[in-house]
Amino acid sequence: MDTPPFTRVVAALPTSVPFVGPDQIERESGVPFRARLGANENVLGPSPRAIAAIGAVAGEAWKYGDPLAYDLRAALAEHHGVPIEAIVAGQGIDGLLGNAVRLFVEPGTPVVMAQGGYPTFSFHVRASGGRLVEVPYRDDHADLEAMVAAAHAENARLVYLTNPDNPMGTRWDATALTTFRTALPADTMLLIDEAYIEFAPAGTAPPFALDDPGVLRFRTFSKAYGLAGLRVGYAVGAPSTIAAFDLVREHFGMGRLQHAGAIAALADQEHLQAAIDFTAAGRERIASIADSLGLDVVPSSANFVCIDLGRDGAFARAVCAELNRRGVFVRMPWIAPQDRCLRVSVGDAEAFAILERDLPIALAAV
Amino acid sequence: MDTPPFTRVVAALPTSVPFVGPDQIERESGVPFRARLGANENVLGPSPRAIAAIGAVAGEAWKYGDPLAYDLRAALAEHHGVPIEAIVAGQGIDGLLGNAVRLFVEPGTPVVMAQGGYPTFSFHVRASGGRLVEVPYRDDHADLEAMVAAAHAENARLVYLTNPDNPMGTRWDATALTTFRTALPADTMLLIDEAYIEFAPAGTAPPFALDDPGVLRFRTFSKAYGLAGLRVGYAVGAPSTIAAFDLVREHFGMGRLQHAGAIAALADQEHLQAAIDFTAAGRERIASIADSLGLDVVPSSANFVCIDLGRDGAFARAVCAELNRRGVFVRMPWIAPQDRCLRVSVGDAEAFAILERDLPIALAAV
Repeated sequence: MDTPPFTRVVAALPTSVPFVGPDQIERESGVPFRARLGANENVLGPSPRAIAAIGAVAGEAWKYGDPLAYDLRAALAEHHGVPIEAIVAGQGIDGLLGNAVRLFVEPGTPVVMAQGGYPTFSFHVRASGGRLVEVPYRDDHADLEAMVAAAHAENARLVYLTNPDNPMGTRWDATALTTFRTALPADTMLLIDEAYIEFAPAGTAPPFALDDPGVLRFRTFSKAYGLAGLRVGYAVGAPSTIAAFDLVREHFGMGRLQHAGAIAALADQEHLQAAIDFTAAGRERIASIADSLGLDVVPSSANFVCIDLGRDGAFARAVCAELNRRGVFVRMPWIAPQDRCLRVSVGDAEAFAILERDLPIALAAV
Repeated sequence: MDTPPFTRVVAALPTSVPFVGPDQIERESGVPFRARLGANENVLGPSPRAIAAIGAVAGEAWKYGDPLAYDLRAALAEHHGVPIEAIVAGQGIDGLLGNAVRLFVEPGTPVVMAQGGYPTFSFHVRASGGRLVEVPYRDDHADLEAMVAAAHAENARLVYLTNPDNPMGTRWDATALTTFRTALPADTMLLIDEAYIEFAPAGTAPPFALDDPGVLRFRTFSKAYGLAGLRVGYAVGAPSTIAAFDLVREHFGMGRLQHAGAIAALADQEHLQAAIDFTAAGRERIASIADSLGLDVVPSSANFVCIDLGRDGAFARAVCAELNRRGVFVRMPWIAPQDRCLRVSVGDAEAFAILERDLPIALAAV
């Protein structure tokens, strides 16, 4: 055999990965990152109760986790005031988006998303042979009107929206989202990725409309709950739609550490509030660092802020590379004109001090 | 919207899950299991070094794991004497089998496996619209000759073999597997699921043939390494085939706890040997319990043993249900004539004592 017998879709895929991880950037450069401001992680860390819960069940890691994640889903159901049947838990939003794509996307399926939106979603769509219809941002916001028009024009089966947006940090409020949903074709599924929703002001998330089988909302423990490395996310939707995940998901894909850590994190809403406050202060700090250099930021409702470098993508890429080279891990939006920005995650005081010192040096060097 | 716009494959899928977990059986019956002998877990547990490693990095759970799992793959590469490019790590064998199915199976793709073989694999194949060609066991072994014939007759793109077999525990040796591989069509991929390989005698696993892009071997930390709840598996194959996993896998699907736990477990080969010895003794204990009731067992190279109840599937199902009802979690093969057996995992002394007392009671009750 010369080449394995890949499917037609796979054989046509370009080699690509959604993100090059900071570990790999470090291995390639030989420079360890001194400031980790690129992965939108929560440096405050998870609730100490979650850490303790993980340690407490580590000795039980020989047991498979409950494939129904019953206890975690029950806790989430109570937290959100929805029935347990409205919730599916899985390995992070990434994993659940992969499941959703398997449910809805086959070769040629039209899928609408923001151009330059979350690369892991487009990665999944491509891997299933879907046809991406990418709608440019308007004023650094997902352009809801244009997305509605594209969904109608292309007969989209799926529309994917990140709210608050990644990589821009902008948001739409609940009213705009409800209007958006109503304006989409009746047979179009709407996936709303709310990875950063806990950081956003009240009024951003619409109430869960469980009588609408056409909407799925994705949440995670990776961001505000500080458990990116644990891999726990969940989706909320109409029970009939949620049940379909059982047809394609990894039933034993989560283990006891994940369930225990997430349940403990959910129970500590005080720590969650501390993370939200910490993040709000961090956004201010990033804006202040930018302001001291005469730079604007894109107003953010997430745990990162785009600093507008005021020039083109080539310039921003050079600044980003220079910062990486100096041990400051930041990322940037992927397409123009958003790629005029650096995307800086909220970090701790030490990381911000390094950024404050190194950003002007990097700007001067480029 | 009445029904979400599922793909044609998904819309035609029957509602099914690969396994009902013990947690759900307990919730439904209201009887907690006193003896956990049904999930082929390793009750000896993971290496204390793995437990310590997990606890030590729990506080870093806010960081994403390295999507390349470099350190884990490097450790595995050294352990097996293969290049790091020959290894992909992922969320258990289940997750990696799901990836492999996405790489090779599209609607209508013929896939050969043992009839009554591992249900998670057939679940994945169905979810991708593949056409399963199921070959009956012969003498409780996967029937390699018949599988070769089926692969030729059906022009199979994939052949899936579990060695040692699950659910029967039987095995083929390296020589038989090498002959099998050679006899398959040249353009057929062979997936060998070696979840239980560490429990099998030397000479079971053939050497890794990394110059053959048509073979993938799947290994796990869930069984001999005692980390079923951590979700870490890996596949070994030709670098060109392994690289294709990057097109479909969840790049951030494993976290730091998983990497750290697996690396520590791999480093403790003394504990692994203890688990292998413990398991061999446990198999003897199961055979002895069966023998005391005048029952035979199917010789096993895994961490479970099929007790041949000597009657039909209806009888065995009734005995299995009665044991479950009494708080003894065991499973059984899914199809005739293998479903004449109970499949009993190696347990601890307490669980075996319960089995020894309750199995004759259950047999008498049915």
